[in-house]
Amino acid sequence: MYIEQINGPEDVKKLNIEEMTAMAAEMRQALLVRASKHGGHFGPNFGMVEATIAMHYVFESPKDKIVYDVSHQSYPHKMLTGRKDAYLYEEHYDDVSGYTNPKESEHDFFEIGHTSTSVSLACGLAKARDLKKEDGNVIAVIGDGSLSGGEALEGLDYAAELGGNLIIVVNDNDMSIAENHGGLYQNLKLLRETNGQAECNLFRAMGLEYVYVDKGNDIAALIAAFESVKDSKKPVVVHIKTLKGKGYAPAEQNKEQWHWCMPFDLETGKSLMEFDGEDYSDVTRDYLLKKMKEDPSVVTITSATPTVMGFTEDKRKEAGSQFIDVGIAEETAVALASGIAANGGKPVYGVYSSFIQRTYDQLTQDLCINNNPATIVVFAGSVYGMSDVTHLGLQDIPMLTSIPGLVYLAPTTKEEYLAMLDWSVEQTEHPVAIKLPGAAMVSDGKAVTKDFSQLNKYEVIKKGSKIAVIGAGTFYQLGTDAAALIEEQTGVAPTIINPLYVSGVDEELLNGLKKDHDIVITLEDGYLEGGFGQRIAGFYGDSDMKVLNYGLKKFFYDRYDVNEVLKENHLTAEQIAEDVQRIEITMSYSMETVG
Amino acid sequence: MYIEQINGPEDVKKLNIEEMTAMAAEMRQALLVRASKHGGHFGPNFGMVEATIAMHYVFESPKDKIVYDVSHQSYPHKMLTGRKDAYLYEEHYDDVSGYTNPKESEHDFFEIGHTSTSVSLACGLAKARDLKKEDGNVIAVIGDGSLSGGEALEGLDYAAELGGNLIIVVNDNDMSIAENHGGLYQNLKLLRETNGQAECNLFRAMGLEYVYVDKGNDIAALIAAFESVKDSKKPVVVHIKTLKGKGYAPAEQNKEQWHWCMPFDLETGKSLMEFDGEDYSDVTRDYLLKKMKEDPSVVTITSATPTVMGFTEDKRKEAGSQFIDVGIAEETAVALASGIAANGGKPVYGVYSSFIQRTYDQLTQDLCINNNPATIVVFAGSVYGMSDVTHLGLQDIPMLTSIPGLVYLAPTTKEEYLAMLDWSVEQTEHPVAIKLPGAAMVSDGKAVTKDFSQLNKYEVIKKGSKIAVIGAGTFYQLGTDAAALIEEQTGVAPTIINPLYVSGVDEELLNGLKKDHDIVITLEDGYLEGGFGQRIAGFYGDSDMKVLNYGLKKFFYDRYDVNEVLKENHLTAEQIAEDVQRIEITMSYSMETVG
Repeated sequence: MYIEQINGPEDVKKLNIEEMTAMAAEMRQALLVRASKHGGHFGPNFGMVEATIAMHYVFESPKDKIVYDVSHQSYPHKMLTGRKDAYLYEEHYDDVSGYTNPKESEHDFFEIGHTSTSVSLACGLAKARDLKKEDGNVIAVIGDGSLSGGEALEGLDYAAELGGNLIIVVNDNDMSIAENHGGLYQNLKLLRETNGQAECNLFRAMGLEYVYVDKGNDIAALIAAFESVKDSKKPVVVHIKTLKGKGYAPAEQNKEQWHWCMPFDLETGKSLMEFDGEDYSDVTRDYLLKKMKEDPSVVTITSATPTVMGFTEDKRKEAGSQFIDVGIAEETAVALASGIAANGGKPVYGVYSSFIQRTYDQLTQDLCINNNPATIVVFAGSVYGMSDVTHLGLQDIPMLTSIPGLVYLAPTTKEEYLAMLDWSVEQTEHPVAIKLPGAAMVSDGKAVTKDFSQLNKYEVIKKGSKIAVIGAGTFYQLGTDAAALIEEQTGVAPTIINPLYVSGVDEELLNGLKKDHDIVITLEDGYLEGGFGQRIAGFYGDSDMKVLNYGLKKFFYDRYDVNEVLKENHLTAEQIAEDVQRIEITMSYSMETVG
Repeated sequence: MYIEQINGPEDVKKLNIEEMTAMAAEMRQALLVRASKHGGHFGPNFGMVEATIAMHYVFESPKDKIVYDVSHQSYPHKMLTGRKDAYLYEEHYDDVSGYTNPKESEHDFFEIGHTSTSVSLACGLAKARDLKKEDGNVIAVIGDGSLSGGEALEGLDYAAELGGNLIIVVNDNDMSIAENHGGLYQNLKLLRETNGQAECNLFRAMGLEYVYVDKGNDIAALIAAFESVKDSKKPVVVHIKTLKGKGYAPAEQNKEQWHWCMPFDLETGKSLMEFDGEDYSDVTRDYLLKKMKEDPSVVTITSATPTVMGFTEDKRKEAGSQFIDVGIAEETAVALASGIAANGGKPVYGVYSSFIQRTYDQLTQDLCINNNPATIVVFAGSVYGMSDVTHLGLQDIPMLTSIPGLVYLAPTTKEEYLAMLDWSVEQTEHPVAIKLPGAAMVSDGKAVTKDFSQLNKYEVIKKGSKIAVIGAGTFYQLGTDAAALIEEQTGVAPTIINPLYVSGVDEELLNGLKKDHDIVITLEDGYLEGGFGQRIAGFYGDSDMKVLNYGLKKFFYDRYDVNEVLKENHLTAEQIAEDVQRIEITMSYSMETVG
């Protein structure tokens, strides 16, 4: 195999077109086998095999610097830059992350997992090169789906202003994660249909030079195009037409499903890991589909990740114009929701915790200053969510609760979630976000009758004494486990509280606890710093109440073992019970000293 | 005067072209007189007088809904929608805010002060209209300067997808706050020069219909254009060429200086409020200009607000290619800084607290995960900063300190700031942000020798006992005032601590205080919730230390009196001293009870 001989880009340059073409087939086969066993981003990488070979043939990495947007197309690049073993041999599959990573290789410049960043980051590399009066090419590789993101469009606009060498490779497979949404895709289509000759050209309108490559999976054509722009003195776009999932029939035919995959059977394409239980995606979709049928003013919004809310293609069709995919454009998703709510509609925007970060200003300005009653459902905001450093869901509590006016709810069960969701959709007083629990969905069948419009009223689930456990969202269960253990060990039954709201403090309830409680324990699924528990600690600052905050240390965890991280952060019932015992001993000691 | 007869859009419709033209002159005169006495956004409003009259002549507001981007061009709209008195009569000048505001009028739909939001918000209004099967026009009015912002470009892209009626009026005065930056402005220029006929057209490339109005200050031409698109069934852009500052010679000639103004002398145009003292803008500019001359890898970045760092046009020229204005594109500014730092440059990005909010994800993903040594200087992050609800600078501590890896420093004096800035520029270990103090700049002449690379090491300024006062940034001075008062009232001299870092806790120092201190007071210039002080409260949660957190309640303050807000939040030395005495009484009482 040719690929086995590739230890770096210098080995790619030794091959001729025929050999490179043969190597492309080998790489695709290796990607296929690895994906079937290991899962990962699939379609985007399959389309970029030839372009990656051609780039490494033409350019001189790492002197010439390639920046991959969102890294979804970086696997072929990793294979050609000293990391082939991680794709060829099962025992090495975990040697690499799913994203570019400077710690892995001098051929990677950023750790990237969010979309639409490559052009602006590449502008930075190019600017530093120019300041230092060095030379070399800087290349941003961006998929068509990522182009709709605000940062990408800002970057394209700024690139012309930057001047100097910058090559922007637009990998156009005519797909985002799902189908593309947005007017610019009409222009990409026009450009594809006119072999890049149409006068009306988004990239030229942004002030950029432009080259079109119709055969974006043909190595010779790609090499010719890259050679024509190498050492360009101006920013130039190389628009290449590729086929997402190329080389694997199921993926070519169902591009959305094969954007990313779990391990699967190579012959049938069927996933090896079937979940048959109901999850929060199903529950959300079922609720919304029903609600939308009953009420034409209810509308579901996604920013290019419709399946997080369970809206597969058939369900999107069923929802019709009441389902909106804005494409990768989270800022617009929030503004749109605010506008819909301002005009009497009932919008529900479902989004991953990791991506709600992209809308901090829109949440503050467009939504909360205007106090419009939009609903945001935050998925995977949990230590049990995605574990890649680029996709952590641990910042949403500090982030969202720093915004005035935003009600942030943390249900602990399916029933609470549905009650909160329905309340939020129907009320007209507040912008509301709901943090879904991580780990497996808990359903206890209990009817929820609470009036959520009485903000920040926590619920006492079990009245005890001395110790109160306030467990938010995911960690409510951990709180009850710890309470049970404390009772077992000390005979004292703690009070158990479900706060329901993480954006505010129930002053009345907390004041009441001062009478017959000495210790309050808080638990939250996210970073402790700036989070829920520290608000409780601040509230009790001038009192004798001891407060123990449990949550995660502020840190960029990466591809972690969830149980290890929980243990490191004292997030087991045993550790919490031990901490409480230690405090009680200290307290009784200091009482004696005083006495 | 015609304008005196206008109580709503229905009165505009009674006028003929000649009368409307006369009214435009009256409105401009009123705007000029008001601005000379009151200050406010100037240039953008002057250019939009005729277009606003024409819109209210053609459309049926409020059934037809007009959304003004960033509100900088909304004063003529306010004059025509029942709020003329606030522009005609000095005693009513303060009846209106500088921004659109639904609380003021049914003709306003959002409270908006940040740029680039109008198209996405208008899409929301339009979508709700369509869901409810209503009719009516939705009109977004956006200046050319705002177009470079990510949310605006996302919105343009999504608008075509939305379908249905949406009219986007692009007010093209060929200026942002300063000159425009970005490749798309070449296209606007081409369109202006070809009377809108050029085939390459950014708006058409985004999938939108397009109409050009060369005479954007001619009421008849504008009426014709708006009538041609009224009730359009598709999203359409009306690109109008206007003159920023039209009708006031000094403003036409110096558009940047007259974007916004303080009260000024009508004849000379000279500001009536001259500040002669040095401020943090001057200090920043002087440092950076010197540093950039010494080191060609240092580069200063702004996102369309160069003067916040003191970089007026002449100073920008002096800095040459080491000064970058990315235009209104904060996301790209942060990504660019990260890229420059990744490639060995030394970037400093200066930005208002209110606008750093627009980059939460870029700070997290593009910058901090990659741990690149960029420097961000945060201006006006203070209760003493801008007091409009849309421009508050109170969220930066909770927001920035929720991001792992970001070092957030809070200097208290000019000398500390310069030492921090120079350390940050030269170090290569961390992304660093520096929160400038509000109120007047304090300069004590003291040399700062601290090694800032030892993170989270607070400084004990004065060793006392029993009570420790930790005053961050702006409020360090308030802390020392309170300490002096406490000493005066009780004879106990508190320990005074300057934390310097607001993104971390000095555990060693805080543990040490347990020995001989009972009370720790924290002060911070921003929202308490999720901020600095609550981290200290959380740290001491399991100990006997009493912690009093001072800062601002999480709330959307608007056009406030700073002293009133400080008082409401117990942020005076007297109130703090009182709180401490109350605590001490409670503590001694409980000691007696225990005893």
